[in-house]
Formats: sequence, structure tokens, C-alpha cells
Amino acid sequence: MAADFTLTPVGRVASPLRDTATAPRQGDEGAPSAWLVFDSSYAAALSDIRPGDTMLLLTWLDRADRTVQAVHPRDDPARPLTGVFSTRSSDRPNPIGLHPVTILEADGLRLRADRLEAVDGTPILDLKPLLSPS
Amino acid sequence: MAADFTLTPVGRVASPLRDTATAPRQGDEGAPSAWLVFDSSYAAALSDIRPGDTMLLLTWLDRADRTVQAVHPRDDPARPLTGVFSTRSSDRPNPIGLHPVTILEADGLRLRADRLEAVDGTPILDLKPLLSPS
Repeated sequence: MAADFTLTPVGRVASPLRDTATAPRQGDEGAPSAWLVFDSSYAAALSDIRPGDTMLLLTWLDRADRTVQAVHPRDDPARPLTGVFSTRSSDRPNPIGLHPVTILEADGLRLRADRLEAVDGTPILDLKPLLSPS
Repeated sequence: MAADFTLTPVGRVASPLRDTATAPRQGDEGAPSAWLVFDSSYAAALSDIRPGDTMLLLTWLDRADRTVQAVHPRDDPARPLTGVFSTRSSDRPNPIGLHPVTILEADGLRLRADRLEAVDGTPILDLKPLLSPS
């Protein structure tokens, strides 16, 4: 019904988390800080981000299974199978991750985020301010 | 630095809004209700959405200029040029729209959202619950 579109990652996550099976499900469930490392061609887009900014990080969950349409929420078999659009499962047709973060350091093309459940190497799609009306 | 990825839209917005130049910038700035019309192959992913659900709708802003890296926020020339990652501009490298909506009706492959600033024909990428911890 519609043409496909091409996502071009603007950077990658650098994190001590290596394995989706053991990573926290959400940033507030014990996730470590992580560096967001951007490609040099996006320096201008990054240039106004400062420590203390609260941002929404968008990632591409490249380990997800895009064919899954129903899951047991939180992998709990006691919970009934649920359509993925009613869950936050990473297995879904277009697996875009949304991560609220606070920026701790801004060092050229690298930003340090306070806590992030995404694993090392996860492609970064976008950053947007959480609070600004812009 | 990273491979590209392919987004496959799961549906489209059906809205009386036709023109990005006159559409509201945010749903809470006078946007009308709209139908979210899904491809039949995603029926299972949709099956647990009910009227009253509060969801985050993700769209692909296909009229955006992906080469823009700095903008005057809200197109106000009095505001200084700002890197797009510090703004909610739709012109940005990966123009993914985020729209909080409440579902008013669920009719098979069509959901009616209470208010939506996206224009008619905008491709739908995903729906996620806003409040569930799943």
C-alpha cells in the first residue's frame, strides 16, 4: 500500500551493555550511562546540545524480529498474547526505540547519556528535545 | 559509518488536513481527529487496541527536507539558527513524527485518533502504548 523509506543512522551507541538478553528493558531499570557517537557529517545538527538537556533518543533496534505481531508482554508466559501495537516489545514491524535521556557531557561528536538500555552498537536515528515547544 | 535500514509503512493517515503549511504544528494546537488506516497484513498487531487507549503514533514525515541541519525554531526569524537535534523541526535527517493520541473508535483496520496534526496520506510506522509498562 505504500512505498518503503530509507533510514540512515546518524551515529551509534557505545555502551558496556553487549547482550539484549541481559540488558535492562528500560533506562530506569538499572541501565548504565552510555556514549552517543555521531557521524561527523551531523556536527551542525548537534551543535546546540548542552549538558543538562533532556532529550528523547530514537534508535533502530536492529536485533528485533520484524515479523512478530503478538507477544506475551515482558516475556511473561502468564500474560496473554497481545498485539505488538499494544505493547512496547522491541519485536514489531518497524522497531524504533524511544529512550528518554539526560545529557551529562557534550564532547564534539560524542554525547554522554545518563542511562540507556540500548546495547553497544545500536544505530542512532534522531535526538529531539523532551521539554522545548520548538 | 553504518548501513541503512528500510522502513515499511504499516498504514496511512486519513485526515481533512491537506497542506503542511497550514496544518497545526502540534496536536494540541487545534488539530482535527483523523483515521489511522492500516494495511490488512497488520491486523494481528492491531487486535488489542481499544477506544480510550492512549498511544504514541509514529509517522514518517515524507514532506520533510532531510538535508536541513539548522532551523529558526517555529520558523521565527527572530529566533537564532539552532541545530535540528535541539528542535522538534520536521526537517531533520530521519524525519520521524511522534504524536500522542487517544483512540476514539476501533473499526477493524481503522482507528480514529482524537487529534492529529499530520496531513492526509502521511505514512504510519508504528503505534505504542503511552502508559503501559509493557
